[in-house]
Amino acid sequence: MSDALPAHLPLNRERLIAPGPVEVAPDVLLALAQPQMHHRAPEGIAKLMEAREKLTRLLGDPYDAVITTSSGTGAFEGALVSTTPSGAQVVNAQAGKFSERWGEMAQRFGYDTRIVAKPWGEMLDPDEVADACKGAHTLTITHSETSTGALHDLGAIAAAAKAQNPDLIIIADCITSYGNAELRPAAWGVDVVVSGSQKGTATPPGLGFVLFSPDVQARMIKNTPHGFYLDMTRELAGQKAGSTPQTPAINLIYALSVALDRSLRVPLEVLWAEQRRKTDALIAAGTALGAPAWAARPSAAVAVLRAPQGLGGKQIAARLAEMGQRALPGQAPHEDTVFRLSTMGYADRYDALGIAGMLEDCFASLGVSFERGAAVQAAWDVLRY
Amino acid sequence: MSDALPAHLPLNRERLIAPGPVEVAPDVLLALAQPQMHHRAPEGIAKLMEAREKLTRLLGDPYDAVITTSSGTGAFEGALVSTTPSGAQVVNAQAGKFSERWGEMAQRFGYDTRIVAKPWGEMLDPDEVADACKGAHTLTITHSETSTGALHDLGAIAAAAKAQNPDLIIIADCITSYGNAELRPAAWGVDVVVSGSQKGTATPPGLGFVLFSPDVQARMIKNTPHGFYLDMTRELAGQKAGSTPQTPAINLIYALSVALDRSLRVPLEVLWAEQRRKTDALIAAGTALGAPAWAARPSAAVAVLRAPQGLGGKQIAARLAEMGQRALPGQAPHEDTVFRLSTMGYADRYDALGIAGMLEDCFASLGVSFERGAAVQAAWDVLRY
Repeated sequence: MSDALPAHLPLNRERLIAPGPVEVAPDVLLALAQPQMHHRAPEGIAKLMEAREKLTRLLGDPYDAVITTSSGTGAFEGALVSTTPSGAQVVNAQAGKFSERWGEMAQRFGYDTRIVAKPWGEMLDPDEVADACKGAHTLTITHSETSTGALHDLGAIAAAAKAQNPDLIIIADCITSYGNAELRPAAWGVDVVVSGSQKGTATPPGLGFVLFSPDVQARMIKNTPHGFYLDMTRELAGQKAGSTPQTPAINLIYALSVALDRSLRVPLEVLWAEQRRKTDALIAAGTALGAPAWAARPSAAVAVLRAPQGLGGKQIAARLAEMGQRALPGQAPHEDTVFRLSTMGYADRYDALGIAGMLEDCFASLGVSFERGAAVQAAWDVLRY
Repeated sequence: MSDALPAHLPLNRERLIAPGPVEVAPDVLLALAQPQMHHRAPEGIAKLMEAREKLTRLLGDPYDAVITTSSGTGAFEGALVSTTPSGAQVVNAQAGKFSERWGEMAQRFGYDTRIVAKPWGEMLDPDEVADACKGAHTLTITHSETSTGALHDLGAIAAAAKAQNPDLIIIADCITSYGNAELRPAAWGVDVVVSGSQKGTATPPGLGFVLFSPDVQARMIKNTPHGFYLDMTRELAGQKAGSTPQTPAINLIYALSVALDRSLRVPLEVLWAEQRRKTDALIAAGTALGAPAWAARPSAAVAVLRAPQGLGGKQIAARLAEMGQRALPGQAPHEDTVFRLSTMGYADRYDALGIAGMLEDCFASLGVSFERGAAVQAAWDVLRY
C-alpha cells in the first residue's frame, strides 16, 4: 500500500501512545468506580495519606507531598506562589513549550523575571543558568521537556546554580520525569518537585503533585497574595494533618494509590531503567526510519522524533490515529518538525516492540523508503534481555 | 540471564495469550456493568435479538442462532440431543481432547457411537470419516481442535460425508474457529455450528452459541429425552420469538453485542485473514525458536507449538506466567509435548509482534540457544503491510 489504508485497520487495538495522558491499568480504572467515599471520612483520609506516602517513596527522598486537584500547571503555580514572595527575582530556564510557560507565569504574577533561553530542542547550559541565578530568589526549570523530548541535566544545573547562590529555591517541573527518569532531588539540591497524575504515575488526569524538601518548608509563604486555591502552604499543613482544605478529586486519589503500587513493586533504579529502555527502543526505531530524536540528551519519558524529509509531524500523527494509535505531533510552532510518542503508562517492553512495528507500517503507508524490518530489529536490540 | 528472573518483570503488562478466555475490549467489559436490565423487558428482548442477528452475520449464512447460558460444551450437548434421536447412530471424528469429548458425550447418552480417530496432532482424513458416516444419523466433528492446534478440513470432510450420506446431520464444534477462520457452513453442508463466547467473539465466558441451518430446523426433536435445560428445539422457538425459556446471562449478552460490533466492522474475509496472519506470526516465531506448530494444517485461532528438545510445555507456560503472560501448556496427556498461545481476543498484529518478543525472552531465560532476533524478525515478516 502507499496511501490507501488497509482493510484490517478497524481491528487494531486502540492505544494511547502520547506523552500523557497514558494507558491506565484496569485495576486503576476500576478504583475510580468504587462506591463514592467522602474525603472527610476516616477511609478517605487514610487514602489521601497512603497516596502521599507512596508519592514520597516514588521520589526516593523524604519530601512531603501535596496532592492538588488540578493539572500539573496548577501544581506548578502553587509551588511558585507559595515559595516566592511578591516582586522576588525569578530565573526561568527555558528551551521548549513547557519551560516557556513557567516564564510566562512568573511574569503574570509580576515577579522580576529573568529568562535564560535556548532554542527548542537544544540543551540548557548549566553555567549559563547558574550565572543568571546570582542574587535570584527562585529558579524555575523543566527536567524532561515534553515538547522537545530533551532531558535537561537537572543535577548539573542545580549543582551549578546552588554553588552560585546557596539560598536559591529551585522548583523543578518534573511533570514527565517523576517516576520515569533518574531524579535525586535531595542530592541534586532541588527544593520543590512538581508533577501530574497522567504521566509517570499512569493515572487519569486531574491531580497535580508538589513535593517539598524538609528545608524549603521553613521558607514557605503564609497567605500568598498570588493565590487562594493553589496556596500550597495551607495545603501542605492541611494534608500533613490528614485533610485537604478544599474538596479533592478523591476517586482519582484512590486510583493513584493503586497505580503507585505497580511502580513501587520494583526498586526505583529498575523502574527508571525499564522506562529508559522502552523510550530508547522507540528512538532506535525512529532512527532506523530516518526519524531520529530531536534532543541530544533524550528524555526517558517521551520520544520526540524528527519528521523525515517530506513528511510533517501532523501527517504522521494523523496516520497513526487512522491506525487507532493516539500519538501527538509537535507543539506549535513546531507541529510539523517532530512527532511525539510515549510508553509512560501501563505499557511494557513488548508494547514498545509493537509500537516499533506500527511506526514501520505507518511510514511505509506514507511512502517513506527504508529497509523493511530495520526499525523492529533496532528496537528489539534495545529491548531484549 | 539464564534461570534468574530479571528485576523488571513486575512492570510487565499482564496479558491473556491463552486460547480462551481471551483479552476482552474495555467497552465490552463496561457493558457488563450497565444498570441491570430484565431479560423480559423490551430492552432485554431487543438485546437478545440484536446479538442473535449479529451472530448470524458473523457466520455469514442465514442460520438461526440460539444463545445458551453455558459453556461451549453445554451448547454442543444441546445441539446433539436436540437433533439426534435416542439410539441413533453417531459418528465421532476425533483427533484431540475436544473431539474426544463429543464421543464421550454421545456414548453417555447411549447413542450408537462409531469413533473415527487419528492420533493427536494428526489430520482427519475426509474419506475415512465419510466411509464411517454411511448409514449414520449424525456426525460430530471439531473444526479447530484447540488441544492440538489443527484446523481440520471441515469443508472437505463435510462434502465427502454428505456425498456418502445426504441425510447426515453434521454438528461442527467451531468453538475456536467461529469468527476466526474461514467457515462456510451452507456451502460446506454443515448443519449445526457450535461455539462459545470466550473465543472468537472476545467476550467473557458464560455463553454458548448454536447456529442451525434452515433445513436442519425441520428435523429437530421435540421434547428430547436427553435434556431439559439444553433443549435447543424449545430454545430456538423461544429465541426466535424474542424470549429465552430460562433466565439468560443477560449482561453477557449486552457485552457480546458490543464485542460483535468490532468483528463486524470489516468483511468476514478481512477478519479471517487478520486472525490467520497473527497466528501465522506466532507460528513463525516459534519455528525460529525450534518450536514449530504441532499440526500440519494449523488453526488460525491458536498456535500449538512443540516444546523444543529439553523443555516441557508446562515449564514454558510457567515461565510465561512469571513474565505476567497467561498462556497454556498442552492438555493431558500432552501437557509437556506442546504449549499453546493465542491472539483471538482484543489483540492486534502489533500485540502478536510483542508476543514474538516475549517468546524470545522466555526461551532465552530457559537457556534455549537460538539466534537472537530471529523470532521477532520471522513474526514481523508475516505481520507487516
